[in-house]
Amino acid sequence: MRLLFLGDVVGRAGRIAVSERLPALRERWKLDLVVINGENAAGGFGITEAIYDDLLNAGCDAVTLGNHAFDQREALVFSERAERLVRPVNFPTGTPGRGATMVEARNGAQVLVVNVMGNVFMGTSLDDPFRKIDAELEACPLGQGADAVVVDFHAEATSEKQAFGHFLDGRASLVIGTHTHTPTADHRILPGGTAYMSDAGMCGAYDGVLGMKKDEPIHRFLTKLPSGRFEPAEGEGTLSGLAVEIDGRGLATKCAPVRVGGVLSEAIPEFWER
Amino acid sequence: MRLLFLGDVVGRAGRIAVSERLPALRERWKLDLVVINGENAAGGFGITEAIYDDLLNAGCDAVTLGNHAFDQREALVFSERAERLVRPVNFPTGTPGRGATMVEARNGAQVLVVNVMGNVFMGTSLDDPFRKIDAELEACPLGQGADAVVVDFHAEATSEKQAFGHFLDGRASLVIGTHTHTPTADHRILPGGTAYMSDAGMCGAYDGVLGMKKDEPIHRFLTKLPSGRFEPAEGEGTLSGLAVEIDGRGLATKCAPVRVGGVLSEAIPEFWER
Amino acid sequence: MRLLFLGDVVGRAGRIAVSERLPALRERWKLDLVVINGENAAGGFGITEAIYDDLLNAGCDAVTLGNHAFDQREALVFSERAERLVRPVNFPTGTPGRGATMVEARNGAQVLVVNVMGNVFMGTSLDDPFRKIDAELEACPLGQGADAVVVDFHAEATSEKQAFGHFLDGRASLVIGTHTHTPTADHRILPGGTAYMSDAGMCGAYDGVLGMKKDEPIHRFLTKLPSGRFEPAEGEGTLSGLAVEIDGRGLATKCAPVRVGGVLSEAIPEFWER
Amino acid sequence: MRLLFLGDVVGRAGRIAVSERLPALRERWKLDLVVINGENAAGGFGITEAIYDDLLNAGCDAVTLGNHAFDQREALVFSERAERLVRPVNFPTGTPGRGATMVEARNGAQVLVVNVMGNVFMGTSLDDPFRKIDAELEACPLGQGADAVVVDFHAEATSEKQAFGHFLDGRASLVIGTHTHTPTADHRILPGGTAYMSDAGMCGAYDGVLGMKKDEPIHRFLTKLPSGRFEPAEGEGTLSGLAVEIDGRGLATKCAPVRVGGVLSEAIPEFWER
Ligand SMILES: [Fe+2]
Ligand SMILES: [Fe+2]
Ligand SMILES: [Fe+2]
Ligand SMILES: [Fe+2]
Ligand SMILES: [Fe+2]
Ligand SMILES: [Fe+2]
Ligand SMILES: [Fe+2]
Ligand SMILES: [Fe+2]
Repeated sequence: MRLLFLGDVVGRAGRIAVSERLPALRERWKLDLVVINGENAAGGFGITEAIYDDLLNAGCDAVTLGNHAFDQREALVFSERAERLVRPVNFPTGTPGRGATMVEARNGAQVLVVNVMGNVFMGTSLDDPFRKIDAELEACPLGQGADAVVVDFHAEATSEKQAFGHFLDGRASLVIGTHTHTPTADHRILPGGTAYMSDAGMCGAYDGVLGMKKDEPIHRFLTKLPSGRFEPAEGEGTLSGLAVEIDGRGLATKCAPVRVGGVLSEAIPEFWER
Repeated sequence: MRLLFLGDVVGRAGRIAVSERLPALRERWKLDLVVINGENAAGGFGITEAIYDDLLNAGCDAVTLGNHAFDQREALVFSERAERLVRPVNFPTGTPGRGATMVEARNGAQVLVVNVMGNVFMGTSLDDPFRKIDAELEACPLGQGADAVVVDFHAEATSEKQAFGHFLDGRASLVIGTHTHTPTADHRILPGGTAYMSDAGMCGAYDGVLGMKKDEPIHRFLTKLPSGRFEPAEGEGTLSGLAVEIDGRGLATKCAPVRVGGVLSEAIPEFWER
Repeated sequence: MRLLFLGDVVGRAGRIAVSERLPALRERWKLDLVVINGENAAGGFGITEAIYDDLLNAGCDAVTLGNHAFDQREALVFSERAERLVRPVNFPTGTPGRGATMVEARNGAQVLVVNVMGNVFMGTSLDDPFRKIDAELEACPLGQGADAVVVDFHAEATSEKQAFGHFLDGRASLVIGTHTHTPTADHRILPGGTAYMSDAGMCGAYDGVLGMKKDEPIHRFLTKLPSGRFEPAEGEGTLSGLAVEIDGRGLATKCAPVRVGGVLSEAIPEFWER
Repeated sequence: MRLLFLGDVVGRAGRIAVSERLPALRERWKLDLVVINGENAAGGFGITEAIYDDLLNAGCDAVTLGNHAFDQREALVFSERAERLVRPVNFPTGTPGRGATMVEARNGAQVLVVNVMGNVFMGTSLDDPFRKIDAELEACPLGQGADAVVVDFHAEATSEKQAFGHFLDGRASLVIGTHTHTPTADHRILPGGTAYMSDAGMCGAYDGVLGMKKDEPIHRFLTKLPSGRFEPAEGEGTLSGLAVEIDGRGLATKCAPVRVGGVLSEAIPEFWER
């Protein structure tokens, strides 16, 4: 099974990168499943239903979120009916939407997509992500409840992310970090067969600060005061994420970074180009 | 000028990776300058004089540090006489050691190496890194006071790192992050000519958590209690960092990631292999 | 019912204050119940079984803890058999010891004593204290499961503490904060009948920093580096806490601060002196 | 010299408490100097010029601020001309306004009023408050440059506040904390003659959370999501602060808490009532 995971879509530059490039890549690489983190798709803050629909129309099968999940307040409502939208599963009981969803890949595989949020440096205290994912995977174990399991771990600290990856090794097809908006180069298959990458990077314009125009953040660091709003950076966006080949047991056999467009060095999964 | 920067050396696995691989790479790639972050070289915590000497003997020209600079208390003493050792320049006035040093590269270039520490998520409040580096570079501007300038920005948050890179664009040859022990894939040359990478990654064993054995960190995340000490992971270490080609004006013309050995995907600067 | 709650006992000065003063106060004020936070009783860090026994012998009925609960590793063992010792109830499932205990007051009342820990600024992420206490009090409601309910909310931020107090108003006899080692003067009875105080203060020597000698903390603030260990301050300790009169429904009718000995201004509950 | 310091004025309830009570107290207690923290005077967030003028008209001689100093953007402008308004002195060079001001008390004494902000748990990294106040007091020492020195240390952590108090003991007439909106009961005169109190408390309505209506903060703790805005609590406000008697050397000879109005227990400085 061929899985493409793409990191946080940031604003217009990120949305355009997805809508203009994903359909062709989906064809070219014969993708069975595409999962995208969309927590910053609406001007950098949250997601609207229209944008969610656009992402699905571009060839995305499931959309994950994070700390910005409900920045657009309409998400408190439409997340209830958006079956392919997942917000962090460790939000409190009663939070609108769902933390996990089952989607069917093109090859017919049933894939569990879970969104979990870390606590370190995140400025909030959600339910313990380690114990929460444990419960989720016990209820729907890889190979039994699902043919594949994709975990988007939305977190800041590399310590928490790497511990999370090892904790799930052998129990998920992919554990991939999001939130830092910066792709890491530590993608690999862990000893137990789980593909891992500390952060998928973002889909957005990299000539900025986390996909936002750079002047305001620099100003704030220098003066400790805001002078205006954060706005998404312009310029060509980069698609950033990970390509994963998954076997019949739901374990990863190959993985390679994807970076297409914009100012980052290009990365293409060679094993799908042959 | 050919510069190789390597990220945080972690414990024995990291030291062996450096001592066994660096001498040959230095020859093969005809390196003019090697800078290594050594803040975790001594069992994961700080650096001793013997290890500092070993790094220099392996072909390193300058050693940078970070929040772990003085974990080994002998560093409070030997850092005074270790002219190629730099701790964060924004530690308080009166802190032992120096925050910047001038080293001569093999090609005769005078290179300013500065270590600066970020404040976001670092659990401390050092002097403002933005204003401090500003003062440093005003006192010793690229092209006037130094033929090249290497800035190791030891920080956690990608926001602070990226803002820092843009802030120095055109004023340094390289701005490279350290501390997360995870290489990023956003290496590039910024519009003003400064090579940038959010994090160099570590030199150490990647089959762990930040280069330490994985059991204890996972245990702490699950129980919120320590059960033992953090110990460096074993297994083959990876050298991780960035290769940079610098021109006569001190600006970067090429850069590429370096990852050699261990469990990460290999990366070699092709422009030095031809 | 006459309840005395005393804040964090810090080191020898705090222990002496308790052992020398509590027995006489217990007689004089005809106390029905004494609850003491003991998380710093052993040299400032944690508690031993011997110290726990001493506190009970001095006239204490239940001992609460906090983030330092298991600093002395023997507490991982003896907390299992120490029926009057409670550590934060929102530690993960499987943590040794208990988070709540039922003790009988001298007047025969059955009193539920619960210890809960906040998350804001505490450097950890325990289970949500609001939802956890909700569950505890649903299982053992005031007036039904218990004649009185004492909640020690071990937390840093006044925002979290005050929200917690209001959240429990009418459902507990007393909600009292601990952890800052500094008594607040906002003690009062909330509209629903719950006595509240943001922090009980500590039992220890106040001529220091949080009950520890002041030189080391000042040194660390100035240099950002440790120069030695934290050690409990010497000098006469102050008993600090709150006196609460509780009626037959388990609600508070009177409360007044208690500060006896040492360098703080004295405070005595006049309604027990007449 | 008779000094009254009042903590953070929060919204309308706080402003009314000041305007209705301060003039009479100023007469009755024959106050020579009144200093008020006004960082939350405008709807809970910052201060306007009209409110600043109202505070002065009510009998206040100097207004201090904190992290909310510039929440109302007009403060970036009027703080330049408001000679009795002080924002944290350790904001970056170039910040509008001033960090210290000299005011003349009714008895003719020249009093230096300084506002400093802590860094622990404050979510920002200002210049080191310890070194900054050191420089300020070296430039204007107690007894030489000023007849009295009042330091408002706007900080969260009791550790940083208490270390700060001891650090300045003998060099200031008063070191008083603000920011937690909760009065502490640890007011006293330190061995060197400096009056100290970890937090002055707020002037505002205490039947809320930090002076704001309690529903929204409780909702956020329970759901981890905002549901509306923070709004100042209604109901009668309490004046909260410290009364200090200062001698000819500028050192404190007496101090006592002031709490008047609202739901807190009343506290009146008896030494001014005789
Ligand atoms: Fe994001
Ligand atoms: Fe995020
Ligand atoms: Fe490191
Ligand atoms: Fe570090
Ligand atoms: Fe404590
Ligand atoms: Fe504590
Ligand atoms: Fe305030
Ligand atoms: Fe504040």
